Amino acid sequence: MAEAPSKGRGLYDKLVSEIEQAGLEVFELSGIEPNPRVSSVNRGAGICRQEQIDVILAVGGGSTIDAAKCIGAAAHYDGDAWDLVTRTAPITDCLPVVTVLTLAATGSEMNGTAVISNTETNDKIGVGDPLMRPKVSFLDPTNTFTVSSFQTASGAADIISHILEVYFSMDHDLYMLDQVMEGMLRTVIKYAPIAMKEPDNYEARANLMWASSWAINGFLVGGKQQAWSCHPMEHQLSAFYDITHGLGLAILTPRWMQHVLDETTACKFHQFGCNVFGLDASLEPMVVAKKSIEMLSDFFFHTLGLESSLSQVGIDAANFTEMAQKACKGGVINGFKPLNQQDVESIYRMSL
Amino acid sequence: MAEAPSKGRGLYDKLVSEIEQAGLEVFELSGIEPNPRVSSVNRGAGICRQEQIDVILAVGGGSTIDAAKCIGAAAHYDGDAWDLVTRTAPITDCLPVVTVLTLAATGSEMNGTAVISNTETNDKIGVGDPLMRPKVSFLDPTNTFTVSSFQTASGAADIISHILEVYFSMDHDLYMLDQVMEGMLRTVIKYAPIAMKEPDNYEARANLMWASSWAINGFLVGGKQQAWSCHPMEHQLSAFYDITHGLGLAILTPRWMQHVLDETTACKFHQFGCNVFGLDASLEPMVVAKKSIEMLSDFFFHTLGLESSLSQVGIDAANFTEMAQKACKGGVINGFKPLNQQDVESIYRMSL
Repeated sequence: MAEAPSKGRGLYDKLVSEIEQAGLEVFELSGIEPNPRVSSVNRGAGICRQEQIDVILAVGGGSTIDAAKCIGAAAHYDGDAWDLVTRTAPITDCLPVVTVLTLAATGSEMNGTAVISNTETNDKIGVGDPLMRPKVSFLDPTNTFTVSSFQTASGAADIISHILEVYFSMDHDLYMLDQVMEGMLRTVIKYAPIAMKEPDNYEARANLMWASSWAINGFLVGGKQQAWSCHPMEHQLSAFYDITHGLGLAILTPRWMQHVLDETTACKFHQFGCNVFGLDASLEPMVVAKKSIEMLSDFFFHTLGLESSLSQVGIDAANFTEMAQKACKGGVINGFKPLNQQDVESIYRMSL
Repeated sequence: MAEAPSKGRGLYDKLVSEIEQAGLEVFELSGIEPNPRVSSVNRGAGICRQEQIDVILAVGGGSTIDAAKCIGAAAHYDGDAWDLVTRTAPITDCLPVVTVLTLAATGSEMNGTAVISNTETNDKIGVGDPLMRPKVSFLDPTNTFTVSSFQTASGAADIISHILEVYFSMDHDLYMLDQVMEGMLRTVIKYAPIAMKEPDNYEARANLMWASSWAINGFLVGGKQQAWSCHPMEHQLSAFYDITHGLGLAILTPRWMQHVLDETTACKFHQFGCNVFGLDASLEPMVVAKKSIEMLSDFFFHTLGLESSLSQVGIDAANFTEMAQKACKGGVINGFKPLNQQDVESIYRMSL
């Protein structure tokens, strides 16, 4: 059983009691970090091999679940789990992972991807394999009633970012899926502030929870290429400064939007502004586009109360060049608009 | 290979050629009826057993795919396939079914359900099992370019009905899924008329095709009970008169809406009218509700040009009592509002 450090004891005690009543033995791995580290993965994989673990139960949010998935794969590999993350060794099998979700954010509960950090190399890398997809996930909104206001806000920003990464593409848009994504964005915008004010509002927590899973379980992709823009940039922030992933995304996303907005992209922002924020469709596309970015910023930084700049979270420009280089992996980030190293560095500077 | 009688030869020839080039042997079962009959299922199952078929390839719309699924299950059963449909014998296994979809309508390509008719007993019964879910479905919108205007319209009505059967419930609504369903309804309302006017409009066909699969693949259900209203009533129409399923649903649905509309249900119709047809949310719920039913009728009977009454398709009241009895199975249809035999008979009469 892998669990997050902040997990309330109530749920944990209940689960352990139920498992033990069923005559099953539990080996615990506690203290999975936010931005989970490969060192924890190796520790977990060691326990799995030594104790011949049959099933990994992940109780927590995305970090715990990501770690559990990677532990499941690493249990079948004798070397350093980092080899699997960097794809220098293949994932050949994975222990079955079962999750009990306690935070609506990453959507890890319903896909085969894990993002693992290496503090020695300042790397944060996503690795995905269908074998790593959880076999069962328990999504009970009441298990998120104790999530703090800040984590609720960061989780909402993460969900919104997952949807926007798919929504903003120049090609292969399907009207139906755009309608679905716009409905999901309106859902998160409606319910995140309610969940922050009323942490035990079931309706709000249920909507956020289901939105978190759908945002990144593959449903929204249709015929699109999976080319993301903000996540590769944010992964460097978390890797270098270990900041909360959703917060990093909230800070970067409006700046990325300002950077990529031009005559060729304004039409998609116009659609976004009208269908998500109810802006007047008869206005000039560029006017609506700019207003839509303002409204998203306002939602992140005023309604959700998230810090609005990198300097506010103690990040300066010292590593921007190296971070931009890593984000581009020597080429370009080939998302909505291709971003080269200069583009990425510029977006980091806009976010200061 | 099971195929619909109306299938263009182009696709059929192409598939047979590719299969034979791959060194595989094909045994054909042609002429699957709309409202596929258990006699065809038994015929197909016989071929499967005799020729030791490994995979069933269904090329067609919902009828062909439903038949293929049931053939797959019946191939593992020595008796009459009707026993499986009526659940007097269990489904123990199913040959793998692969589909090439040629009609956006029933959504059979992405779920484990089949609806089979028995002309001897005037029964049309749905049977579902996860084993019967197609292993792979090929959804190429260009394969629906030759679908007639009438079949496009009937298919659109079928898709809309599948969504409405889930959308209209009194309990367990999830805002996010309502947003998704409203977006899908707007999608079908936008693109069905375009596909009728421009049969080779890829965008229109793609949207209808993906909507057909999502409408009934389980995505929309969330925490709801699966209690449907119009389908049980329509199945009797098709069973007794062999009419096109989507057309039957189009005729019944607005009458069902009129029948169940009251002070307790008006709020859901108000939501439907505002979010799907853009009606003014500030108007009285009952006013919006009635207008929304008018607009749906107008869409079915004017925009799509479907026949608007049972008498127009040659159905009179002769069998209404027996049909209502069968639809209620001796109890009530426990959908949005419970419908007893008198309710169902009344809705049939309103549809005359």
